[in-house]
Amino acid sequence: MDIATLLGLIIGMAVVVAAILVGSDMWVFLNLPGFLIVIGGTFAATLIKFPLKTVSTAFRVGIHAAFVGDKDDPKSLIDLAIELARKSRKGGMLALEGADIDNRFFKKGIQLCVDGMAPEVVRKTLVGEMNQSIRRHEEGGKIFRAIGDSAPAFGMIGTLVGLVQMLSSLSDPAAIGPAMAVAMLTTLYGALIANLIALPMADKLESRTDQERVTKSLIIDSVLEILGQTNPNVLEELLQIYLPENLRIKHHDEKAEEA
Amino acid sequence: MDIATLLGLIIGMAVVVAAILVGSDMWVFLNLPGFLIVIGGTFAATLIKFPLKTVSTAFRVGIHAAFVGDKDDPKSLIDLAIELARKSRKGGMLALEGADIDNRFFKKGIQLCVDGMAPEVVRKTLVGEMNQSIRRHEEGGKIFRAIGDSAPAFGMIGTLVGLVQMLSSLSDPAAIGPAMAVAMLTTLYGALIANLIALPMADKLESRTDQERVTKSLIIDSVLEILGQTNPNVLEELLQIYLPENLRIKHHDEKAEEA
Amino acid sequence: MDIATLLGLIIGMAVVVAAILVGSDMWVFLNLPGFLIVIGGTFAATLIKFPLKTVSTAFRVGIHAAFVGDKDDPKSLIDLAIELARKSRKGGMLALEGADIDNRFFKKGIQLCVDGMAPEVVRKTLVGEMNQSIRRHEEGGKIFRAIGDSAPAFGMIGTLVGLVQMLSSLSDPAAIGPAMAVAMLTTLYGALIANLIALPMADKLESRTDQERVTKSLIIDSVLEILGQTNPNVLEELLQIYLPENLRIKHHDEKAEEA
Amino acid sequence: MDIATLLGLIIGMAVVVAAILVGSDMWVFLNLPGFLIVIGGTFAATLIKFPLKTVSTAFRVGIHAAFVGDKDDPKSLIDLAIELARKSRKGGMLALEGADIDNRFFKKGIQLCVDGMAPEVVRKTLVGEMNQSIRRHEEGGKIFRAIGDSAPAFGMIGTLVGLVQMLSSLSDPAAIGPAMAVAMLTTLYGALIANLIALPMADKLESRTDQERVTKSLIIDSVLEILGQTNPNVLEELLQIYLPENLRIKHHDEKAEEA
Amino acid sequence: MDIATLLGLIIGMAVVVAAILVGSDMWVFLNLPGFLIVIGGTFAATLIKFPLKTVSTAFRVGIHAAFVGDKDDPKSLIDLAIELARKSRKGGMLALEGADIDNRFFKKGIQLCVDGMAPEVVRKTLVGEMNQSIRRHEEGGKIFRAIGDSAPAFGMIGTLVGLVQMLSSLSDPAAIGPAMAVAMLTTLYGALIANLIALPMADKLESRTDQERVTKSLIIDSVLEILGQTNPNVLEELLQIYLPENLRIKHHDEKAEEA
Repeated sequence: MDIATLLGLIIGMAVVVAAILVGSDMWVFLNLPGFLIVIGGTFAATLIKFPLKTVSTAFRVGIHAAFVGDKDDPKSLIDLAIELARKSRKGGMLALEGADIDNRFFKKGIQLCVDGMAPEVVRKTLVGEMNQSIRRHEEGGKIFRAIGDSAPAFGMIGTLVGLVQMLSSLSDPAAIGPAMAVAMLTTLYGALIANLIALPMADKLESRTDQERVTKSLIIDSVLEILGQTNPNVLEELLQIYLPENLRIKHHDEKAEEA
Repeated sequence: MDIATLLGLIIGMAVVVAAILVGSDMWVFLNLPGFLIVIGGTFAATLIKFPLKTVSTAFRVGIHAAFVGDKDDPKSLIDLAIELARKSRKGGMLALEGADIDNRFFKKGIQLCVDGMAPEVVRKTLVGEMNQSIRRHEEGGKIFRAIGDSAPAFGMIGTLVGLVQMLSSLSDPAAIGPAMAVAMLTTLYGALIANLIALPMADKLESRTDQERVTKSLIIDSVLEILGQTNPNVLEELLQIYLPENLRIKHHDEKAEEA
Repeated sequence: MDIATLLGLIIGMAVVVAAILVGSDMWVFLNLPGFLIVIGGTFAATLIKFPLKTVSTAFRVGIHAAFVGDKDDPKSLIDLAIELARKSRKGGMLALEGADIDNRFFKKGIQLCVDGMAPEVVRKTLVGEMNQSIRRHEEGGKIFRAIGDSAPAFGMIGTLVGLVQMLSSLSDPAAIGPAMAVAMLTTLYGALIANLIALPMADKLESRTDQERVTKSLIIDSVLEILGQTNPNVLEELLQIYLPENLRIKHHDEKAEEA
Repeated sequence: MDIATLLGLIIGMAVVVAAILVGSDMWVFLNLPGFLIVIGGTFAATLIKFPLKTVSTAFRVGIHAAFVGDKDDPKSLIDLAIELARKSRKGGMLALEGADIDNRFFKKGIQLCVDGMAPEVVRKTLVGEMNQSIRRHEEGGKIFRAIGDSAPAFGMIGTLVGLVQMLSSLSDPAAIGPAMAVAMLTTLYGALIANLIALPMADKLESRTDQERVTKSLIIDSVLEILGQTNPNVLEELLQIYLPENLRIKHHDEKAEEA
Repeated sequence: MDIATLLGLIIGMAVVVAAILVGSDMWVFLNLPGFLIVIGGTFAATLIKFPLKTVSTAFRVGIHAAFVGDKDDPKSLIDLAIELARKSRKGGMLALEGADIDNRFFKKGIQLCVDGMAPEVVRKTLVGEMNQSIRRHEEGGKIFRAIGDSAPAFGMIGTLVGLVQMLSSLSDPAAIGPAMAVAMLTTLYGALIANLIALPMADKLESRTDQERVTKSLIIDSVLEILGQTNPNVLEELLQIYLPENLRIKHHDEKAEEA
């Protein structure tokens, strides 16, 4: 559970609502037609930008990724890889048959080794799978970014519509102020949707994709080195680069204790 | 038929028209000279930006791609590739002569194999063809993006023209409001053309080009592995990466049933 | 002759002039000091941005490229390459001595082969020449883009100067309107120079450079395959990728007729 | 200690405060709700953009890097490398055991050599470590850049909220001015946070990362050449490229004196 | 001496001053506090963005490069390379000892050959030196670009400060105009510093870096081919690509005359 996403949304909303309530009533800032033109226009532009199927799945995948987060931490993957390397040094690749691996991508890689695939086939399959998987996950980030691009534009379009309506009928000077206030609300809606929700979500999804690339690279390295019967100690040295230094020192201590 | 493109355009138009009708009559927002300066200026800039021949064909190709969409789904292409691999393992490349292949790019690749071309020549020809084809399709996206860049600029130019005209003859203060309203209409036109039509269309065409790259890569991989007499089961493993996971599981079940 | 560039400029000018004349006299929009600050400032910034020699030649080369266009079409280059391949298969490289080749780059490549240069030297020379030639042609695009960046900035600077002058001497309220109109003219000039002339010209020059890259790649491929004594039929297959599909089918018919 | 960062912040603050005090009292520019909406909104968006753990560590690492700076200068690293190369030429790799090396990355590289790892493993480990380390340090730059993107947006949102409140209750014309002044303060806060603090800090962190890449490349080159038993004089020639010319001349003099 | 840089600065200043004097006195546009906030803020941000040492040297190097320009023209370097190639074909590498070479980079390359370094070491040293030299020269461009980014931002900050001061004390309506004029001056200062000085200088420095890359590539190619004992005529053919076509034809004539 990525608490930061939820926390950020709540704090952001609270700050804006507080700023509003300090100076006026809430209802001054609620305007249904203005809200509809921003939401409707952004939705329409998003529909044109992406295939229909992509929109719904990428949206669902994206929200899931933003709020749930990644379960695999590099530390435990490395420990698992070293354990598997030790097993395979003793009993050959077949000793890895049915090994207890939670991560589906790691499991698939080991299964390919057990099935006796050539190293080049294993590499091609895993790298290809990683690239395709990343490509699918990038869709989610792209959709939120597209929303973040469209929302301010339709906010401005709503404001332009409101200003033209106001200016073309300047009968009552006293009505100018409130009419302009209403016209500016759509710009405010667009800015909030983009800067508080869509663009930050897009950034989070992109950093998730980066994380995924690192994790899957670690797994591919592990599988290929296991298949190549690399010495577990060398493997440990090679994989340590995926850990931040503070975690690595701890790791070294464990090794010392083992010895 | 890509229903999303059409749906998006209709919803977008409806939302804007509704926002207009809520606050005023439609005719307040219609201004022929303003419309002409935005459309005409954007058209002129697009003519300068691209060769004449490119504009017309890319425009036509682009609209077709945006509304029609791709017929080839990866699943059926993979099934076809496995079938062809089985045939060629039994009867050699010549057994693929006249095979029933709908996709023109796949057909050409198999024909090159049947003609006895060397693997390197097949690869070079297909990759070159893919790159050139993608280059041609990218033109469509570029033209819509160019329109999306020019339209707001000419909307602003129209507004500047209107403001200068209004400011230079401030005889009747009562006329200021309506004159400014008219001046702002071109900015509104430019923003709508860019954000509701041109930029979303450009994005859709670019995602179409991405899809095409994936599909053609799948076909090139298939043809080269078939030519290399790869075992159909290994081929299936290799090509599965082009499928999303949910489709892949189903695929696995079929394999289980076959066995 | 690239008629699109000229046509675009004329249509663009006509549309803007028409929009002006609908609402006011032409002279309202003419302001010499404003025009000078935009033109002069943009010219000054361009002088600083590029070496003096580059500015004049790149400007001249750029305008030539934008209005004249490319004479070499891929179809005739491919036909020529196949003909040369046939000749060289019969009589060796020396048979190509003095062959009738209009394109200077192609001629140079064939001459290198006739001179007995090693394939690697031929490749290095031609690729190096292509890269340097493209680098020189890109200068033109860069200069027009620089103008397109500077013109709106100096338009805004002119407007700021005008506004400060107006605001610092608000003696006569009736003069505010016309003074603001004059101040806004420089913004209009800058926007027109950038969006109707400089940026579209830059885009056209960049698409010309892309075309040149494709044409020269085709020629390099041809020369190297001819030097490698590739079978003319295989060469034809390889080079076809440079043609759009409709031209290619026609090509295929010719081959059928030959057989 | 990177005095420039601190100096820049102090000078920037002083200039802005001075500009304020010249024309008015300080308290005109202090507005707590406005400050909270900019800070709170930016904080919320940053929380959504990055995982919670990343925010706190990257922020801490970033500030440390911006104010403290790098201790390793290329000159002393090169001298150290040449010394180690001489030692290893005499006594083999084992002579480097326990050598006095301050830089942890250099120490690790030499340790790998002493442990008898193959050159390819050493290279892979060090390059992998460099990339992962740079990736972690880039996070700091990204976070400050994200703050620099969000702060002006929330400044504008605060101004929009203030303007809507003011316009919707135009009862007292005399209150318009001060209300607008307050509304514009959030835009000012956002601009100051972004342009005086966040974006410059992001730039400094990025240039730190560039420095780190150069330093670590120097070390990797050194370790591999030492492992390859390169002649110390050749090594000196190779590593000199990491020095600016003025430092290099001095270096040459030392060599002359040695000879 | 790059006269264009100086000419551009003078023309730009003259145009702006002329535009000012046409409509008002010069002193209307002079405002010391406004000038200090733009200059001071930009200076502060630049200090934070770069290490202190970098700022001063890069600034000095940058201004030197912008006004002085490059002395080495490709034509004379090519002639020199051919001459050296001829010498080394007759007398071996040692014949190049003490050859009269003005360019320091060329001289160093030839010295490495004379010292009997292996081709791979020569290539590594020269390419490494080129990359490090370019990296150092890019710093200058980056600093001017940073100034060009900061100046308009601090111009806007100055204007916001001025507007808030004016709006918060609307006692005398007659003072509004002049106060706004003063507030807008900082925006004007920022725009002038960025668009007339900093950004054009950054562009010139970047094109200088491009030139340097081409010149150094030419020299590296020359040195390696000389070391490889390439035939001087082949070398001439290879290096000609660095010349524009019109210079090349002249070159060819000289060759004809030599023969």
